[in-house]
Amino acid sequence: PRRFEALPRVSLQLSCPVPLQDYPHVLLAHGGGGTLMHRLIEEMFVAAFDNTHLCARHDSAVLNIPVGKIAMTTDSFVVQPLFFPGGDIGSLAVNGTVNDLAMSGARPLYLTAGFILEEGLPLETLWRIVNSMKEAAQKADVKIVTGDTKVVEKGKGDGIFINTAGVGIIEHNQTILPGMIRKGDAVLVSGDLGRHGMAVMALRQGLEFETTLTSDSAPLAGLIGRLLSEGIEIHCLRDLTRGGLASALNEIAMTAQFGIEIEESRIPVCEEVKGACEILGFDPLYVANEGRFVAFVAAGDAGRALDIIKKDPLGAQAALIGTVTDSHSSLVTMKTAIGVSRIVDMLSGEQLPRIC
Amino acid sequence: PRRFEALPRVSLQLSCPVPLQDYPHVLLAHGGGGTLMHRLIEEMFVAAFDNTHLCARHDSAVLNIPVGKIAMTTDSFVVQPLFFPGGDIGSLAVNGTVNDLAMSGARPLYLTAGFILEEGLPLETLWRIVNSMKEAAQKADVKIVTGDTKVVEKGKGDGIFINTAGVGIIEHNQTILPGMIRKGDAVLVSGDLGRHGMAVMALRQGLEFETTLTSDSAPLAGLIGRLLSEGIEIHCLRDLTRGGLASALNEIAMTAQFGIEIEESRIPVCEEVKGACEILGFDPLYVANEGRFVAFVAAGDAGRALDIIKKDPLGAQAALIGTVTDSHSSLVTMKTAIGVSRIVDMLSGEQLPRIC
Repeated sequence: PRRFEALPRVSLQLSCPVPLQDYPHVLLAHGGGGTLMHRLIEEMFVAAFDNTHLCARHDSAVLNIPVGKIAMTTDSFVVQPLFFPGGDIGSLAVNGTVNDLAMSGARPLYLTAGFILEEGLPLETLWRIVNSMKEAAQKADVKIVTGDTKVVEKGKGDGIFINTAGVGIIEHNQTILPGMIRKGDAVLVSGDLGRHGMAVMALRQGLEFETTLTSDSAPLAGLIGRLLSEGIEIHCLRDLTRGGLASALNEIAMTAQFGIEIEESRIPVCEEVKGACEILGFDPLYVANEGRFVAFVAAGDAGRALDIIKKDPLGAQAALIGTVTDSHSSLVTMKTAIGVSRIVDMLSGEQLPRIC
Repeated sequence: PRRFEALPRVSLQLSCPVPLQDYPHVLLAHGGGGTLMHRLIEEMFVAAFDNTHLCARHDSAVLNIPVGKIAMTTDSFVVQPLFFPGGDIGSLAVNGTVNDLAMSGARPLYLTAGFILEEGLPLETLWRIVNSMKEAAQKADVKIVTGDTKVVEKGKGDGIFINTAGVGIIEHNQTILPGMIRKGDAVLVSGDLGRHGMAVMALRQGLEFETTLTSDSAPLAGLIGRLLSEGIEIHCLRDLTRGGLASALNEIAMTAQFGIEIEESRIPVCEEVKGACEILGFDPLYVANEGRFVAFVAAGDAGRALDIIKKDPLGAQAALIGTVTDSHSSLVTMKTAIGVSRIVDMLSGEQLPRIC
């Protein structure tokens, strides 16, 4: 990239720095490789994400990895609006990649950040987002070690898109993969569903004054780390982002070729999400979460796992919602509140565009 | 991400697969987390980038790393037009990140790929780009191990943006950083300058029929690996992308606080690039390259290093262009063809928007 690592630091102001006095908005030149780009990088990105890796100012970050097995992941973020109750595109971009690493049972260590800025984005907006990333990275105990900035002409982007990629280390001997689930496994969700998607949608639909819903966006690696260090036998983990619980379970059932049976009455959904879903016509099973996961654990460990999750503030609403079966192979079925069993399909088409 | 790793493979066609028969263009639903997204991932991305890591279909790729020191980097690509003589956004996205890793002296191993697609992009176009990435990855001997797909509404993007992040391993004991250069170091460029930038600009300006210029986009890791394995004492490497040679040298001079003196007559620029630069009003020193680097090597190794570079087809036009001095600290100076010495500034403002 060589885009965060250019000139020796000049000055550092604590409110939005950079050319705000000269240029309050992103210009094409901020992505052009010259002086203005270097000032943006130094006075905004390096100032916020400051660490020894960034300070080497080179094409890549060189990192020490204590063990021989790593996890690697990437996600792009295009959420609209950029700021929403409980988070913004910056914290989402950090938490999303942290959580993808955690779902492989890895301890997240290092993140990259790639920015695609639209000409005209207020630098003040960028500064708020960058600071939100900084705080989220501190909270998740990861370092943003390298990055890249591109600028596209007005009308060829949408304010800001962020890509984060991450590397974590695997410090245990469990294999955590969809293909590892087996008959009898307990299916746990770490909390109530639908908060992120409905908080963003409520804002988009102008319902924000009728609800106090906030996104559940949060880093899950600490909680997963505790499950692992307590010796819970985990077969599969998945964070419940785009497509929600229904899509995650369908993907896992199809990959593993097992059935998954869940009970509607056990699935935690708060009243506000239920209400917003009814008004806007969504099914909470398909709504995106950004701080919730599903865990498939050995039956004998289910109770202990649930206790550990519930002790964490992020897991207070956790619940055992179902089991893995060898009937209905590759299908997800749900016993509804009135006792009927129905198939829970994968989402077809799109439900919530640009939710993350 | 969980976006390349979803359903068991269904079918694999060799010409553009996926919903082309049903939907010839990208729909919002291709990014929505449902069936259509999974078909896109399985039938296009997994089909092209097929490897055991992708096939585990999980949130992250789990990778074995043979040593304890890795390099990590990221780059986003927004080049317009998407296809240009000598390459396209796909091969550029692979080579760019491979080269950033190589410039840290790392052997590139694994890449991630994040796609931001604009609604309406022809799937045939995406297929051509994905195949170009596949070929570039094979050529550079790297694996694309995980990825992510987002779709934005028509008018909120520009066809396709690609982010790649990469991890490589460091298999030697040299420290290759701007801060390592010292007085007397030889400054080598690996080939003639300006081909990538001028090939893209000629196309954009409608000059493509007057020139046979092609981009120099290429993976440089093999060549760097040979310099290292031959024991060349390398102090700093940098690929000459956005901002060109002038910006790279300025960044290094400022970080290292040494002077760099180069000679205009030694800098290789082909006649076609000179011609296109004259017509379009560019200075080849500031034009982006995507397959050229500058190397700072110990004076005693300069001849041997140049020989090694010249033996590689990618380095046939390599040249010794200057030295590091302790006068004019932090400045780049150039002896011009008429014998005058002038300061080579960092590019201010933007010269070539969306060149990579």
